[in-house]
Amino acid sequence: MSTHKVSFLPHNKTIEVRDGENLIRAAMEAGVHINASCGGEGVCGKCRVIVEAGGVGNGISERLSQEDIDKGYRLACKAIVREDVVIRVPTESVIDTGVLNMQSTPRRTAPIREFDLEKLKEEGLFLPPVKKVYLELPEPDSQDHLPDVTRLVSFLKLEHDQHRLIVDLPVIRKIPDVLREDNFRVTATLARPVRKDGQTHIINVQPGNTSDRNYAIAIDIGTTTVYGQLIDLVSGEVLGEYGDFNGQISYGEDVISRIMFAEKGDGLEKLHTVVVETINKIINKIQKKAGIDRDDISAITLAGNTTMTQLFLRVNPRYIRRAPYVPAATLYPPVRASRLGLAVADHINALVYPQISSYVGGDIVAGVMGSGLYRTEHLTLFMDIGTNAEIVVGNRDWMACAACSAGPAFEGGGIEFGMRAARGAIEDFSIDPFSLEPMNITIGNVRPKGICGSGLIIMVATMFEMGIINNSGKYNRELDTPRIRERNGVWEYVLAWQDDSQIDRDVVLTEIDIENLIRAKGAIYSGCQTLLEEVGLTMNDLDRIYLAGGFGSYVDLEKAMVIGLLPEMDTEKITFIGNASLLGARMSSLTNQIRRDVVEVTHMMTNFELSETPSYMDHYVASLFLPHTDLNAFPKLKERLEIRNKMRN
Amino acid sequence: MSTHKVSFLPHNKTIEVRDGENLIRAAMEAGVHINASCGGEGVCGKCRVIVEAGGVGNGISERLSQEDIDKGYRLACKAIVREDVVIRVPTESVIDTGVLNMQSTPRRTAPIREFDLEKLKEEGLFLPPVKKVYLELPEPDSQDHLPDVTRLVSFLKLEHDQHRLIVDLPVIRKIPDVLREDNFRVTATLARPVRKDGQTHIINVQPGNTSDRNYAIAIDIGTTTVYGQLIDLVSGEVLGEYGDFNGQISYGEDVISRIMFAEKGDGLEKLHTVVVETINKIINKIQKKAGIDRDDISAITLAGNTTMTQLFLRVNPRYIRRAPYVPAATLYPPVRASRLGLAVADHINALVYPQISSYVGGDIVAGVMGSGLYRTEHLTLFMDIGTNAEIVVGNRDWMACAACSAGPAFEGGGIEFGMRAARGAIEDFSIDPFSLEPMNITIGNVRPKGICGSGLIIMVATMFEMGIINNSGKYNRELDTPRIRERNGVWEYVLAWQDDSQIDRDVVLTEIDIENLIRAKGAIYSGCQTLLEEVGLTMNDLDRIYLAGGFGSYVDLEKAMVIGLLPEMDTEKITFIGNASLLGARMSSLTNQIRRDVVEVTHMMTNFELSETPSYMDHYVASLFLPHTDLNAFPKLKERLEIRNKMRN
Repeated sequence: MSTHKVSFLPHNKTIEVRDGENLIRAAMEAGVHINASCGGEGVCGKCRVIVEAGGVGNGISERLSQEDIDKGYRLACKAIVREDVVIRVPTESVIDTGVLNMQSTPRRTAPIREFDLEKLKEEGLFLPPVKKVYLELPEPDSQDHLPDVTRLVSFLKLEHDQHRLIVDLPVIRKIPDVLREDNFRVTATLARPVRKDGQTHIINVQPGNTSDRNYAIAIDIGTTTVYGQLIDLVSGEVLGEYGDFNGQISYGEDVISRIMFAEKGDGLEKLHTVVVETINKIINKIQKKAGIDRDDISAITLAGNTTMTQLFLRVNPRYIRRAPYVPAATLYPPVRASRLGLAVADHINALVYPQISSYVGGDIVAGVMGSGLYRTEHLTLFMDIGTNAEIVVGNRDWMACAACSAGPAFEGGGIEFGMRAARGAIEDFSIDPFSLEPMNITIGNVRPKGICGSGLIIMVATMFEMGIINNSGKYNRELDTPRIRERNGVWEYVLAWQDDSQIDRDVVLTEIDIENLIRAKGAIYSGCQTLLEEVGLTMNDLDRIYLAGGFGSYVDLEKAMVIGLLPEMDTEKITFIGNASLLGARMSSLTNQIRRDVVEVTHMMTNFELSETPSYMDHYVASLFLPHTDLNAFPKLKERLEIRNKMRN
Repeated sequence: MSTHKVSFLPHNKTIEVRDGENLIRAAMEAGVHINASCGGEGVCGKCRVIVEAGGVGNGISERLSQEDIDKGYRLACKAIVREDVVIRVPTESVIDTGVLNMQSTPRRTAPIREFDLEKLKEEGLFLPPVKKVYLELPEPDSQDHLPDVTRLVSFLKLEHDQHRLIVDLPVIRKIPDVLREDNFRVTATLARPVRKDGQTHIINVQPGNTSDRNYAIAIDIGTTTVYGQLIDLVSGEVLGEYGDFNGQISYGEDVISRIMFAEKGDGLEKLHTVVVETINKIINKIQKKAGIDRDDISAITLAGNTTMTQLFLRVNPRYIRRAPYVPAATLYPPVRASRLGLAVADHINALVYPQISSYVGGDIVAGVMGSGLYRTEHLTLFMDIGTNAEIVVGNRDWMACAACSAGPAFEGGGIEFGMRAARGAIEDFSIDPFSLEPMNITIGNVRPKGICGSGLIIMVATMFEMGIINNSGKYNRELDTPRIRERNGVWEYVLAWQDDSQIDRDVVLTEIDIENLIRAKGAIYSGCQTLLEEVGLTMNDLDRIYLAGGFGSYVDLEKAMVIGLLPEMDTEKITFIGNASLLGARMSSLTNQIRRDVVEVTHMMTNFELSETPSYMDHYVASLFLPHTDLNAFPKLKERLEIRNKMRN
């Protein structure tokens, strides 16, 4: 894909973007503010820029006169980059470029950590839990009356050095006919034991040679969304992926409401059934798309939080939400997948990730396994900020974990105009330090209708760093702009006037919203502090951060440090591992080592119930500021704030 | 129970019998011949005897005149022994009592070998595959958030030294509620591992203390009859037993016809279903009769021949009856019993005895295990003569086995008036050496309608030893009696004239019948010879014989030696072990050691396909005589025959 250089004047900032990139997004990426209230739909007409060299596609609107167009004016939100261009942003007064550059740091999300299949192979760990072996058996005759199963097993023992073999009844039922279908040439599917001295199960036999067709399914059972991957167990590659809403959503948005539903009548059965239906829909999609045979899917691995896991396995979750909050189990044995209702062949087992506690579930364990956290020597902080926030700190020697009651602010909950990351959500934001006019970038480049979690963090961080809100999250009431106002006794900033929005009201960010965000980030930050303190460490000792979950992929790392969600750290040391639960499920399909190690890992992971850990409340209260009561923990931010204050004064 | 002495004159034989014993049966037991054609129904009136001392109950009939009655005559078949008596048997001429005593040896069946539970306990082998453990767990609180399953498992590990525990999903589903039903006081049911280093499964949890209620079911799946026992796993005692016809009988009498039925349409499913129904009927009967709770049945063990086992497990048996006659498998893994349709709790496993070959099945392996053959130092011959005849020779060091195509003669098949051992079957027989009149004893003391297997052996042996038939099984055509005659070109002996029988014809024993019996016993005897010869031994090396199966309990040991079915041996060394299959199933319920040993035993047992063992045909042909071509192998019989011949000449 070709890229082009876009230079912004008077900022003197140049950025490289993909061909076809929207110009206003390029500006945001470069940290260049352009007033833009309408989210990029071209309605407000405020994002006028002048193309000084090169040309852009589109960008012409009825909001521009022919004269303006002739002068090179375009609407940045409608303009498309097709070649190297130089863009001048009109400013209302002559401004020091130093100030210009201070107004926004370039957005930086965590780089995605790619799964390193080659390394796995190099380490000799590419050992899927199931393998296929092609056999040409001697045929029975009047001198050789070996029973069919014995014939198969003996051959595997002698010719393939496979010992302690066990054959399940459904396979025994198939063997006599399958052996005779292609003159005793068969492919056996072997399930490797967890322990080296364990028993290898022969879980399937197929006529002829099918050893090049061996697949696994990995499933992440999220409270909101379920994702599945189809994995080729011969190459290790992912052949397909598909996600869909968890069908349980109709019965409650979060785990607590699902548990309550499960306690009533046949609620548990119902929730079990619908999530199985969702999983089956995903299996069907990816299987059909890849054009593979169902009988060649030899394994399915699943991970989900504790409630999702119990509902999927039809284990009553009622004690999860009742003090003292105990889950039914940590480890679950392999379960015949078809008996759970999964649309796979009768012979395969569902391998389900173990849980740690009621609120640190299999999705987190999957993340710990899939990310390699449990094997690293570096002190690592793992965070999964989703419907609930779970954190793990530790390395290969020890791990501590906790669930933080962050509340749903990062998902848009408790925020007046909060919404999920969907079309019309402001996902990026900057503000002009003089006019205090906003630059709203929305998902889908349409007029704003709300704010998603990552946008919220950027807004609060930006406004805090520019002094528009103070470290308690309160607006500076002295500022001269109609956008900051009091309504029903609550102060707020108007992000988009009603006319520039998709809704019949002004889209605003209130002080209550900011307070909720502060509580949410404070819960997580203080959770990490508490875990570290319990082992005599501090945030400064952290070597790395792994961000997981949908939210983690969008969060602006620098901004997250500004609000005090993340500890201040070189962003190079922060990686985004994506859907950790799915990653762990996939890893389990690729290496049986995971199943061996995971039991030990569950024993290693010390769970803290933060509400019952005395130091937690102190840490929490101290964290209810931007970024924190202790600004010294954020030295870079402290320095920037000091420079800014000097420049102001 | 009181007993009485019965003395017979002029034989001078005295026998002790139970109070209420039938007089003619007492005579037969003493080896005293009394003419009796009608089987004991009092119709023929030939069994007149004189009570010389003491008195008998009944015995008076319209066949006796008042004068006879006054003289002390009674009909032996109707007379009941109530006190010590002296009985004179009228003889038609003055006979040397030496000859009298030669006419019949007292009947001797093998003594039943009682199951020695105490010895099992002494040897430390009373280790049922499942045990119950009562636990009082600490309750969770704000300082103790252990998951429910972890709580249970940890307690078992610490307090009960149970390690490598695994909890199946259905139990996990129950644990949360069961723990809270009686304040965390629970009884766990543990399934012991087969190998010492194996995993112990927690298969059930029950609220409170139920550790004194732990039961197992043992099932023998016979082709004709299914038997079940309820076993108390705390005491080891059998609490109940019940047998019923195998519901598959409607679909074919023998295994071959069942296999043929299974090959058609849903025949396999049908046969599987009906045998499961039969088993369930038996489980229900014995469970209800004992008044125990279904949830307290913790194990079920089953044994059957190869075809019965495959049909029960729904494994297609089609290759069992097709050359080269291979079964599907030898070992079957434990199978969740409820999934086979068994009417037991969901958590218990069905343990099914392994097979050796298509025609040496789990019933025989069960016999080898249950009888202790596999642990003895003595060279032992095990014979199970049922619908098919299976033999095992060996000891703890080696074992060889084979199925003999004996044909159904012992079950009454291929015998003109052959029948199963049911009401009206002649089960015992003697013949007057002078008049050649028979003494028929029938099951139920009714008029004869046929001959059962054990009666047949006695008839042929008796007539052979008395010279009425020769060693080729042909009648002496010189004898002066209307009972020996030619009909449709075949010579026969009339056992009961039409008037004395239950049917509208004479009941006879033909030379064809005798030939069929000779073929049957020859197949078995030569089978044993072949197995022994393969390991360089002969019949003389045998230390013991174990007889199994319904037939074995009735067979007259001496007579079986006379016809050459059994090798000549001190009868003290022959024991009847009853239903070997049921015995083995019961043993598996009492000691887990069986499951550990049985795998090795199946490897030890060398199966011979007699039809493909060259020496077998030679042995077979040589055995088609009474008792055998080689009379020297039967030295006692040889001596008796020589004395008899001398007396004749």
